[in-house]
Amino acid sequence: MTLFTNDYCEGAHPRILEILAETNLCQQPGYGADEVCAEAAALLKKACGAPQAEVHFVVGGTQANLLVHTAALRPHQAGIAPASGHVSTHETGAIEATGHKVVELPGKEGRLLPEEVRAIVEYNRSEQDYVHTVQPRLCYISFPTEYGTLYSRAQLEALSATCRELGLYLYMDGARLGYGLCAETNDLDLPAIARLCDAFTIGGTKLGALFGEAVVFTNPDLARDFRCIMKQRGAMLAKGWLLGLQYKALFGEDELYFTGARHAIAMAGVLTRGIQALGIPLLMPPATNQIFPILPNGALPRLREKYGFEVWEAAGEAHTAIRFVTSWATRPESVKALCDDLAKL
Amino acid sequence: MTLFTNDYCEGAHPRILEILAETNLCQQPGYGADEVCAEAAALLKKACGAPQAEVHFVVGGTQANLLVHTAALRPHQAGIAPASGHVSTHETGAIEATGHKVVELPGKEGRLLPEEVRAIVEYNRSEQDYVHTVQPRLCYISFPTEYGTLYSRAQLEALSATCRELGLYLYMDGARLGYGLCAETNDLDLPAIARLCDAFTIGGTKLGALFGEAVVFTNPDLARDFRCIMKQRGAMLAKGWLLGLQYKALFGEDELYFTGARHAIAMAGVLTRGIQALGIPLLMPPATNQIFPILPNGALPRLREKYGFEVWEAAGEAHTAIRFVTSWATRPESVKALCDDLAKL
Amino acid sequence: MTLFTNDYCEGAHPRILEILAETNLCQQPGYGADEVCAEAAALLKKACGAPQAEVHFVVGGTQANLLVHTAALRPHQAGIAPASGHVSTHETGAIEATGHKVVELPGKEGRLLPEEVRAIVEYNRSEQDYVHTVQPRLCYISFPTEYGTLYSRAQLEALSATCRELGLYLYMDGARLGYGLCAETNDLDLPAIARLCDAFTIGGTKLGALFGEAVVFTNPDLARDFRCIMKQRGAMLAKGWLLGLQYKALFGEDELYFTGARHAIAMAGVLTRGIQALGIPLLMPPATNQIFPILPNGALPRLREKYGFEVWEAAGEAHTAIRFVTSWATRPESVKALCDDLAKL
Amino acid sequence: MTLFTNDYCEGAHPRILEILAETNLCQQPGYGADEVCAEAAALLKKACGAPQAEVHFVVGGTQANLLVHTAALRPHQAGIAPASGHVSTHETGAIEATGHKVVELPGKEGRLLPEEVRAIVEYNRSEQDYVHTVQPRLCYISFPTEYGTLYSRAQLEALSATCRELGLYLYMDGARLGYGLCAETNDLDLPAIARLCDAFTIGGTKLGALFGEAVVFTNPDLARDFRCIMKQRGAMLAKGWLLGLQYKALFGEDELYFTGARHAIAMAGVLTRGIQALGIPLLMPPATNQIFPILPNGALPRLREKYGFEVWEAAGEAHTAIRFVTSWATRPESVKALCDDLAKL
Repeated sequence: MTLFTNDYCEGAHPRILEILAETNLCQQPGYGADEVCAEAAALLKKACGAPQAEVHFVVGGTQANLLVHTAALRPHQAGIAPASGHVSTHETGAIEATGHKVVELPGKEGRLLPEEVRAIVEYNRSEQDYVHTVQPRLCYISFPTEYGTLYSRAQLEALSATCRELGLYLYMDGARLGYGLCAETNDLDLPAIARLCDAFTIGGTKLGALFGEAVVFTNPDLARDFRCIMKQRGAMLAKGWLLGLQYKALFGEDELYFTGARHAIAMAGVLTRGIQALGIPLLMPPATNQIFPILPNGALPRLREKYGFEVWEAAGEAHTAIRFVTSWATRPESVKALCDDLAKL
Repeated sequence: MTLFTNDYCEGAHPRILEILAETNLCQQPGYGADEVCAEAAALLKKACGAPQAEVHFVVGGTQANLLVHTAALRPHQAGIAPASGHVSTHETGAIEATGHKVVELPGKEGRLLPEEVRAIVEYNRSEQDYVHTVQPRLCYISFPTEYGTLYSRAQLEALSATCRELGLYLYMDGARLGYGLCAETNDLDLPAIARLCDAFTIGGTKLGALFGEAVVFTNPDLARDFRCIMKQRGAMLAKGWLLGLQYKALFGEDELYFTGARHAIAMAGVLTRGIQALGIPLLMPPATNQIFPILPNGALPRLREKYGFEVWEAAGEAHTAIRFVTSWATRPESVKALCDDLAKL
Repeated sequence: MTLFTNDYCEGAHPRILEILAETNLCQQPGYGADEVCAEAAALLKKACGAPQAEVHFVVGGTQANLLVHTAALRPHQAGIAPASGHVSTHETGAIEATGHKVVELPGKEGRLLPEEVRAIVEYNRSEQDYVHTVQPRLCYISFPTEYGTLYSRAQLEALSATCRELGLYLYMDGARLGYGLCAETNDLDLPAIARLCDAFTIGGTKLGALFGEAVVFTNPDLARDFRCIMKQRGAMLAKGWLLGLQYKALFGEDELYFTGARHAIAMAGVLTRGIQALGIPLLMPPATNQIFPILPNGALPRLREKYGFEVWEAAGEAHTAIRFVTSWATRPESVKALCDDLAKL
Repeated sequence: MTLFTNDYCEGAHPRILEILAETNLCQQPGYGADEVCAEAAALLKKACGAPQAEVHFVVGGTQANLLVHTAALRPHQAGIAPASGHVSTHETGAIEATGHKVVELPGKEGRLLPEEVRAIVEYNRSEQDYVHTVQPRLCYISFPTEYGTLYSRAQLEALSATCRELGLYLYMDGARLGYGLCAETNDLDLPAIARLCDAFTIGGTKLGALFGEAVVFTNPDLARDFRCIMKQRGAMLAKGWLLGLQYKALFGEDELYFTGARHAIAMAGVLTRGIQALGIPLLMPPATNQIFPILPNGALPRLREKYGFEVWEAAGEAHTAIRFVTSWATRPESVKALCDDLAKL
């Protein structure tokens, strides 16, 4: 059984395990107040060209999202997200559990549209509705999106400009950030993201770490007392240095974060070309390490015998869009075998 | 200036003020633990044909809605509501502030559709998504809806059957319940609502009381410790008998609740016929005491000089749907004057 | 049966009911955006010598308390209150339900002590504990306290100075404020309270209104978007002018608020002297309209046949402290009858 | 610098890192739905003699505590904890942030006393107070306590019996459970704890894991939909098998959990005897791996040059109680050096 289900189905870069073993017997202060985390944060700030940024490390993505909303919003304020956004659909109401509404906008191919943001904000701020509607204060986006699509630099600049004009924080969920940055069609980089967003995460879990999301705040307002909020929501790892250690490895000299991401993109390219050669249609234009082929319903049980994948959504009566995900750890022979088996369906 | 803005722009039935004055110097125990509330609850249970029901009185509608959601839902559970529902749009995120997501469905003309309810519930309960999505547990509907439309008996029975099959509570916001029950096209009554819903409110604020919503629980599970939750959320009136007193008056021998509602419906009929005679189109088929004419944008400033009304939504580039509301207190001469002035626009 | 149970067991000043009747048929805009509320707020600001203050009217005391905490605190921040404070004991965890801890300090006779406040704040702010403990940001006090005691001007000045030095908001729950201000031993007045506190309430429910608490903000930081928070927590009365109307009456030319309070204090004086003449000990030195006699347990059932009162706390094995409350509406003959009956126990 | 600050200042049992390396390239399904977690849960249930128990793995202790309270309590319900309890003092209001009050009782030496529990529950349930006070539903205890003390079997049985009589869940925070179980004076074991508590944690973070707390539910009511609540609060680890892997190692044939704990207890014994030999008084009778010597304030700076420890509390004007913690990883030579240096102070 080979899993193309998710990029978190793999362990960690072996180098991370080596460092873990080498430093295992060094005592460390708890809760991330250690040198390793400080060094990792410095590496990330350098990579982002943002020396003033503040970096915090947490274990998971839902955790990062709920913490940022908690820190950013006063009680009557809300987040805005695309209807397909992870916070809208697949976090069991984590944001609402912090007391805040997620205003879901249609968006396009997983992206939030500036004009839709402007319309709801202006409506909710009108004199007649101000008190009776939530007041949006933060826009949540993901890069890549849940459909594997990207924001172009121009799209992100337009959204960022709209947010700043309207007084909204722009927050990017980068659970798969590396895969987006290394995509062929991408024209964004970390310094641009740091400049255009108020906060964003650099996901480690799906890119070679055992676990970990780095939350980068370029807007200091958002970072106020963030560690207090982390602790309160159970998001402060006792042995915090484990997070620093992993990010130090990923963003150190060998740039494991990016070499791993490039490998996944290459594997996705092979798989995409194989699928297209078979004439199998795709739900979304392929961009990153997520590929959404549309298959006849009858083909799924046989495929499931040998491969893990996610059922994405129905595509008419007789077909289903499924999702394959490649990762830093995907082996070329697995991709080849999958293509061969797809040909036989 | 005459206000057709809302049915809460009026005081109270004079009879209520008389009783208030007559009983003002009687001492009463606090927090609704008094005889007056008990008598009022008995009258409501009788009117609903529901001797086993439990009745609680609160001051306002948003209060009632947030209390019922708080009582009904475990942390990971959610409400379902039409996208146009009051809890979805005009309660400043009151439900989300209790920690629960409101899953907004498109619906039709303000009504929730059983098939849309079924689809989201089955999706969220699927093995793949169960843990990662909110679990709907309650459906919120309003009667009449925010568009002044009604559920027919058949529609409510279908929705109720779907809810029961799926294990969802059905909760009806009856802020304007009387106006719905007295509408010409209505075929529902209180006993039917009591039988088909798990909980519902009988709104007083908009129907002749100074304030007050009666929350009726026909499903005892939902009513457990409701008074504790009322107190915790600041919804327990110290002089609770004021609520009982008003409901006793409204549902006593004179049936002020229904005579007032019928008057509003009659006035709405006069206004609707006047509007239609002028060839002014309506956004929604008229049913209750809310009427949504579509007027040229240029006509609004002049109208605003003499009348209060709500701007509802844009209707193309050059027109706007506005809302007129009649009430138990609307004077025939006001309606006539409005019709005359609309003719002059 | 005569109730000395609570000062909310009475109706309203007859003058309030008269005005209600006189203005009943005037249409008003909803949600407190009316002239009556504006005029009432102006009267209160004048009485407080605080022209820059912001005034909001809500229905109840628990509501006021939970709203102020919601508006004042970021997620990791907490309130401080005496262990006997209403928010600590008798609001069903209303503050905690907003997500915030109430740090309970022993205090003395119901009062918060500056030195206890300082100790916990300094401890929780120490480097070692900062992230792991709640950060107090608001002190809750009541005036009069739950024991009927008062803060002297010197005590309130000392507490206020400590709060300002430590960066804490000082919030006074004035559910019975009038009774405190009219007490013989009191040396505080509204302008002093407005100057020394960041926010406070002027309670109407217990002082002649049907219902109502005026929340006065002298610190504008606390008042930001307060109406949004009111709406979200179900605390915005649709017919908001009912609150304005009552406060206009209470703080108008006749100063019903203070004449009523002085009457209650006079009645309490008669009752206190009667109790003391019988040699019945008191739990607390009498100051306002609450009196806490300590009676043999065996005397309570007989007393309960004719009078309502609250059981306060055990006073040794064989005695119980109970509470009598007088009000603006207490009749002299009721006090005399109670004294006579106490003599017969 | 040698840290006796906390038992989380060490890495992991080397065996855990070996298994991590050996299995790193095996793909796994996400979110704990893997075989490794199932096997680990089976080992824990066997060790607890509780085949019907339900086991969930989370990353941290505050996380475990807030999840259990969230799952256990309806909105108006509260937890009870000793005033010294971790949830009362050092979790930044994590429980209150879930909306629930922690009723803090004095207790004794860190233990909750059945008679204090009974008193508050009976008071809050009395007719007069029921609606106005929080309703306790869960008792939080820690074993060992924050003072390193233990509950004897008799004490735990008495507390458990009181909880069951009163309808309260009993929940034990076992962040340091192993150290308690291996203490010389202990007479409890896992099966007894499983029988007497409704839920408890078996802490891994402080006992040789990189991270991890196993939440064991012996009362199935508490476990309902726990995974949904985990996900919602950001407590579901994407690579959940990492938790299973560590618990499998700790509770496998070599019983690393207990051998590590016994070592820490032995080291604590050596240190305690060393301290007592020097005539240094202790704040608490020593029982587990936490030792609380009382030192002259002037001695602390010198000690701090070579050792990490926590300042616990002032002990009079001139002395301070500090805390030393030993662990599974404490080296004998470190303890000897510390004793030598204490002798020189």
